[in-house]
Amino acid sequence: MSNRLPPPQATIRRLSIYLRSLNSLYETGTRLVSSQELAEFLDLNPAQVRKDLAYFGEFGKRGVGYTISRLRDHLIEILGLTARRMVGIVGAGGRLGHALALYKGFEKRNFNVVALFDNDPLILNQDWGDAGPIRHISALPDVVRELNIEILILTVPAEAVKEVFDYILQSGVKAVLNFAPIKLTSNKVRIHNVDLAIELESLSYYLGGTSKPPDETV
Amino acid sequence: MSNRLPPPQATIRRLSIYLRSLNSLYETGTRLVSSQELAEFLDLNPAQVRKDLAYFGEFGKRGVGYTISRLRDHLIEILGLTARRMVGIVGAGGRLGHALALYKGFEKRNFNVVALFDNDPLILNQDWGDAGPIRHISALPDVVRELNIEILILTVPAEAVKEVFDYILQSGVKAVLNFAPIKLTSNKVRIHNVDLAIELESLSYYLGGTSKPPDETV
Repeated sequence: MSNRLPPPQATIRRLSIYLRSLNSLYETGTRLVSSQELAEFLDLNPAQVRKDLAYFGEFGKRGVGYTISRLRDHLIEILGLTARRMVGIVGAGGRLGHALALYKGFEKRNFNVVALFDNDPLILNQDWGDAGPIRHISALPDVVRELNIEILILTVPAEAVKEVFDYILQSGVKAVLNFAPIKLTSNKVRIHNVDLAIELESLSYYLGGTSKPPDETV
Repeated sequence: MSNRLPPPQATIRRLSIYLRSLNSLYETGTRLVSSQELAEFLDLNPAQVRKDLAYFGEFGKRGVGYTISRLRDHLIEILGLTARRMVGIVGAGGRLGHALALYKGFEKRNFNVVALFDNDPLILNQDWGDAGPIRHISALPDVVRELNIEILILTVPAEAVKEVFDYILQSGVKAVLNFAPIKLTSNKVRIHNVDLAIELESLSYYLGGTSKPPDETV
């Protein structure tokens, strides 16, 4: 029986990680996986895995587990990863934008960077290969519609976010991946905020952060 | 009663997200939070939150929940975020490395980028401000020890990883945050691999990926 509520965003994010775990298992020759084993990959409890997957239907057989190849195909379909997605980068002249414009990891996963935007007159119209030329921010709404861009990656500095965000809303784009150092929310476009410091914080734990239980209860 | 097993890596990563959730709640004037409410922030079940926190001691009161300010202080201590951590960037001449060298989000969270490494002779010894000059990769082991660097951020291309990784192991650094497009593992240094495509994949779901239950069970 499938759960009728829309799946929460963190569940969707976990699907992507389940998918990678299934791919790794499949490469080692494994063909079946239990919710317990899948849970161990993400250090979750098995009930959480079953709950996450139950949003999308009944995938496993009690006592048998999941057939890896079929669960993998379902996750690819659920995540919409069979379609090629057109992506634009806003703030492509900045270092992070430039790095992401050339990041090889996106195309391998069916995300094509097809347009680059910036407002720096010194780089406008420069041709940066497949995704060039650099276009002015004001062209964003037209270009998004022309090229069927579904995701914009935002890498502008904090002070430029407001102006740029107006163009983004005008464009009618469906989704924004925000690397700008300001948390954005909107009810008109789906936004995921990326915080690179989280990655450093969890490493910090292993550097001699005290892990002993506290002396008192709170 | 605290759990005696070492906490898994995904639990540590969630602590960092609990911490952000607690900070957001505190800013809105909230002073107490239940495991149910904290779970909703991460779309987890409350048992998972209680299990994650139980690795580190007994923080909540049954029926009352957690005192936000005290849980927050404990998480900061557990994660080792009271100490300032020295960070080096390997491959700083690349676009991503350069972007991360100047990323403002790290210093705000007590991570100081104090050294930049590359092997490009054209930029060696260039001064890039607080973290400059650019040093040659071969100086990495000495510089890590001299400057007490605890984390290296790796942003070199795939083909450079092997050579660079030898220097990293020689340096005795404790942790590596790997942005290179090759998954690294080691039993000598704690490595977290970052995959930026995961962020795009979960957005893809919202673009019209089919979310209807499959027709058949697998």
